[in-house]
This record gives sequence, C-alpha cells and structure tokens, in this order.
Amino acid sequence: MKNLLDGIEEILLMGPGPSCVPEEVYKALSKKTLGHLDPYFLEIMEELKDMLRKMMNTKNNLTIPISGTGSAGMETSFVNLIEPGDRVLILLNGVFGMRMQDVATRLGAHVDVLEFPWGKSVIPEVVEKKVKENSYKIVAVVHAETSTGVRNPVDEIGDILGDSETIYLVDSVTGLGGIEVRMDDWNIDVLYSGTQKCLSCPPGLAPLSFSDRAMAKLNARKTKVPNWYLDLTMIANYWGQNRVYHHTAPVNMLYGLYQALFLILEEGPENVFRRHLDAHKMLVAGLEEIGLKMLVEEKWRLPMLNAVCTPDNKDELSIRRRLRSEHKIEIGGGLGPLSGKIWRIGLMGHTARQENVSRLLRALKSVLS
Amino acid sequence: MKNLLDGIEEILLMGPGPSCVPEEVYKALSKKTLGHLDPYFLEIMEELKDMLRKMMNTKNNLTIPISGTGSAGMETSFVNLIEPGDRVLILLNGVFGMRMQDVATRLGAHVDVLEFPWGKSVIPEVVEKKVKENSYKIVAVVHAETSTGVRNPVDEIGDILGDSETIYLVDSVTGLGGIEVRMDDWNIDVLYSGTQKCLSCPPGLAPLSFSDRAMAKLNARKTKVPNWYLDLTMIANYWGQNRVYHHTAPVNMLYGLYQALFLILEEGPENVFRRHLDAHKMLVAGLEEIGLKMLVEEKWRLPMLNAVCTPDNKDELSIRRRLRSEHKIEIGGGLGPLSGKIWRIGLMGHTARQENVSRLLRALKSVLS
Repeated sequence: MKNLLDGIEEILLMGPGPSCVPEEVYKALSKKTLGHLDPYFLEIMEELKDMLRKMMNTKNNLTIPISGTGSAGMETSFVNLIEPGDRVLILLNGVFGMRMQDVATRLGAHVDVLEFPWGKSVIPEVVEKKVKENSYKIVAVVHAETSTGVRNPVDEIGDILGDSETIYLVDSVTGLGGIEVRMDDWNIDVLYSGTQKCLSCPPGLAPLSFSDRAMAKLNARKTKVPNWYLDLTMIANYWGQNRVYHHTAPVNMLYGLYQALFLILEEGPENVFRRHLDAHKMLVAGLEEIGLKMLVEEKWRLPMLNAVCTPDNKDELSIRRRLRSEHKIEIGGGLGPLSGKIWRIGLMGHTARQENVSRLLRALKSVLS
Repeated sequence: MKNLLDGIEEILLMGPGPSCVPEEVYKALSKKTLGHLDPYFLEIMEELKDMLRKMMNTKNNLTIPISGTGSAGMETSFVNLIEPGDRVLILLNGVFGMRMQDVATRLGAHVDVLEFPWGKSVIPEVVEKKVKENSYKIVAVVHAETSTGVRNPVDEIGDILGDSETIYLVDSVTGLGGIEVRMDDWNIDVLYSGTQKCLSCPPGLAPLSFSDRAMAKLNARKTKVPNWYLDLTMIANYWGQNRVYHHTAPVNMLYGLYQALFLILEEGPENVFRRHLDAHKMLVAGLEEIGLKMLVEEKWRLPMLNAVCTPDNKDELSIRRRLRSEHKIEIGGGLGPLSGKIWRIGLMGHTARQENVSRLLRALKSVLS
C-alpha cells in the first residue's frame, strides 16, 4: 500500500490560514506524548496559560486553549454564555459575523444584527446609538474579518460598552499574534482565537479567555450548559488547581502551541507586529505595481489578510490553481458574496516575511502575463 | 526563558490513554502543513475515510474523524440525533455511560437509564425486556468501559435491536483498534472512537461513523442542530464531494491518524488484536503471581484496559507516583466510586507488547516490596 504522506510537498501558505509553521513548532508536535494528568505536563499547561495571557494582555484566570479549531472557540464562547431568550447584538460585516449570528440563533438567543457593508469597517457611532436604545446581554464583533481583510475598531467599541452589564465578546481568530490585542484595556470580556493564523501553529486549538464578569454570567446560569464537551465550568476544573479529569487534552497539539507562543514572545510581539506590517506594505505596493486593486480602504486594512480584487479579464480559479501547481504557493479565494471577486492573500505569522512576498509577486507576474 | 518542552522525557504510557505512539506517527505529525482545501490534502482525506471504514467494518459513507477528542465524538453523536423530548435509553455500567446520560440530558432528551453493577457486563436479556416495554429513539452503550475494564456485548444487543426503528449508538473510544468492531454486522448505527487509545495516535480526534438510518434521522430534524461546530450536515459537506469550507480541519493531527491507521492495517487487524490479547494474558498472570486480583471476571475482561484491585495495606497513589518518578511508567487510578480501589493498566495499541508488560511487572514488584 502506498503511503500518501510520503508525497507531501512544502507549500508556501499565503491563504487565509493555515499559515507556514516554523521548524521548531513541527519539532514540538513530535515530542513524546505525556499523560494529560502527568505532573510535568501540568507544568507545561501552566506556562501555556501564562503565555496566552501575555499575548492577549489580560490577567484573566480562565485563559486556556480549547480542544478544537478556531470555530470551537466561537461555539464555546456562545454556548457557555447564552441562555434561551438572551438578547444578543452581532456587529456583522463578513462571513464570520454571519457565523456568529448562526451559532447564537441555534442556541436560542434573541439575535439582533447590525450590518455594515462587507469590505468596510463597523462604525462605532452607529453601535453606540444601537446599544443606547436596547439592552443587550452580549455584544459580539469580529476583530479581524478573515473574509474581507477588514480590521474592526474593537478598542472604540469597548470604550462605548465601558463598564455596562453587557458582555463584550470578540473573535480574534485572525487578529491574535498579528496585531495588538489588549483584552483588559479594551473592556473585552470574552476573546477567542485559532492557532493556524498568526500564531503559526497547525490548526486544532482555540485559545480563549473569559473575564470575571463573563465567568459570573456563566456561574449564574439557571440551566446546565447544553454542551458537555465545551462546558467551561468543567474544563476550568481541569485547567485550574483541581486538575479534575474532563476530556483527554490534545497533548501534542498543546506542545505545538507552547512552542509557537514561545517563539513569538522571544521575538517580541512588537517586532512580530512590525514584521507583519512591513510585509503587508511591500505586498500592497507590489500588487498595485502589477495593476491589482485592494478591496479595502487603507485605514481599515489588516496587515495579515489582504483582499485583492481579481482581474476582470482572467479566470481567477485557474490562476490560483497555477500558483499552487507551478509555484507551490497557496492563496485563498473569496467567500460568500465575494466569491470569484477577490483573492485573499495571507501574511500570517511565520509567513509574513519579505522573501515570501517577493516570491508571490514574481509568481503572480508570471501567471498573469 | 527556559523552554519546558526540552525537558520532556519518554514515559511508558500504561494508563487508560493516551497510549504510546509509534515513531512513524510522531514523524507524520510533523509533516509540512497543507491547506485544508489543498488538492493533495483532499486525497489524504479520502484514504483516511477508507481506512476508518476498514477498521470499523462498515460501508457507511459518513465515516470521518471529528475535530475534537473522543468526548467530542460522543457530543457529536448525541447533538446531531437528539431532538427535545426524544426517548433515549442508556445502558450504564461505568463513568462513560454516566457521561452519555449527562450529555443526552443536557440536550433535552427524555433519558431512561438501565444500570448494571460497575465491573460487570450489561446483560442482553434485561435490555431485551426493557426495549420491548418501551419505544426508544436511541439506545446507547459503551463497548469498552474505560473506567472498569468491562467489555459489553454490543453484538448481542445489536441482534436484539435488529432492524427496529431505534438508532443503536455505540461508544468504542477504547475498543476500536484493540478488539474487533463490526459496525454493519452488529446493526450499529452510530459509532465513535478516540485516537489516543488503541489507535496509538496522540489525543485530538474522534473517528465517527453514521449509518444511512442515522443520517435519515438527522436529515428529518425539525430544527437545526443546536451546535454549529459539530453539525454533521455541514461537516459532511466538507468531507464529501462538495468540499465546502466549514471549519479549518486539524491537518497535522489528521496526518498522524492516517499514519496510525496505515500501521494497523499493514500489521493486520487480526494480528493487532492477538498482540493485545497476548500482552493481556501475560499481564494478568504476572499480576496474580504478585498476589494482585483483577476487578472483572475473566469472560468480560477487556485486553486493553485492566482493572486491578489495589493492595489493602498500601497507599495506592504513592505507588503510582513512584512508578512514574522512579520507573518512568504511567498507570491510571480509579474513577468515581472506584477511586482508590483500582488501578487501570492500559495495554493499548503500540503499548500492548510483552516487553512493556515485563517492564511494568518488574517495576511493580520493586515498588511493592
């Protein structure tokens, strides 16, 4: 029998995630498996929590990786906090805001949506008006919209919500590790991310943090969380001082995340953000030189997710296929209403380097000529 | 900053999982990450599904790994099938049956429990009487009770349920890869497992299979599955022909599972089962020689999970700690009512080898002397 794993080639991952993985993280993934209650593994878990707190700029006790991919972070956040009938406001300007709407609706929330044009930012003044007119248990927004490349002003929205009773929930799946996240300073109560974007670890885990206020809402529930696997009251008992077995933690993936965070903190988050921005500026300049246009206005652009309008006179899918087959580069297509209309070029984590930008620009010139 | 990963030692994993991981699986985990929609990765996914079908002896189309640990397999199975008020019968003789009861209850099922003494098997005749008196949408049982080391007669229960309308749901987290599983022959509609037991891959994925009858119940739901992340209608669209993006699959973990299944099929499942049985017999003989007693009667014993009564005159926890610190061996303690009363010695997958049994017996003699 032929083993397909022998034929895996190295692809330059410049799509919307997963991103390129540093050699040290690959090595970490293949360290010897320890038991999920092994005393040495518990030490690794403690440091992992500390490193996540540093990345998120939070003091929250419950700051842990959830045993599932980024979307499991979204599911965990909503399922623990929503009780049927709770009024929830979703600020929506892309696919991942739509996903929030779907998740919250399935859980029995009364969901209001404030929609903004895709490719443009959420406008804080409009949010302010909406939350003054209504009382919401939760207001949720995506920090870095992976479907459009827009950065939403999560800091300004946090100022508006301030010390109100409302839980402020932020999806930073694509943000964390690529741009600054200041959870406590921005009044964020719930934040989740994914490992396969700017943290440059393979997909499989969702870093998540709950503030004391979010924990208080969880602990005041009248009914059990309708999801055993993602019930944070039990998961917190495993990651906390009691170390009560809940499910078997994904040990080797956690090694990978440990190493990925270690590398970012060693390089220094400020330097990592600068590296993202430099690569982004070089990419935009190069794309404009080829005659391609960015979807998003400069002031709202994310450095790590670049939405580029596809050329009118070309079949965009065949260009992506040629990049993959001839140049071993992956870029992403558009999602939903932007399908066929944009490419999504990722400069996430380990991928965000000038040599990768040069390689992509050369390849693009070649396949577009 | 010190990197804790540098200090990871190789521990002989003889607890209730995770089990020892073959070198080839570690190597697979660190193969270069591909995109979750990359054409070559899609080929790997196709073969992965085929290998899982071979392991489970099923033709079911929807046979895939869920992006979470074994307990996520349980959650997925119940959340997709239960609609509020559905009558569900749980056959319970250990912790994982209790977990089923908790999961199903949270989802709004009307749950009946048929409990059997822990450490003894489910009795098919009692089940037959119960299902004749009542009409259940789902009957659920654990194949290999990891908390007690009991094998339940899932084949006989399947005969009883036959072609009835009832969905037959089986947890084979600890069974699959260590003892035979014949999903189609035994009339099983839903089966899930975990990677970290007899498949000898690190924890992180839950192989799962749904029969056409289970899919029909899912597709006839009146309401959406109240869990976006684990909604099989959408997950099936990603793993099926359409390849519609749902969540980013845990690519490197899937490489690991591919390699783990590859090794089992290469060795031959029959030979693997024999290896488990031989190691088990050797272990039991050795334990009895030391004067230790098995919890479970011989006819119900699982080869891969051996529940041993702890010696009366010793502190069982300090013995386990000495095995870990002095001999680099992990064994498990008891759960729930069996806490302190038993040890759980795993002979799962790659661990199930006579040299490991010898090493453990030597170590046990040393710490007990």
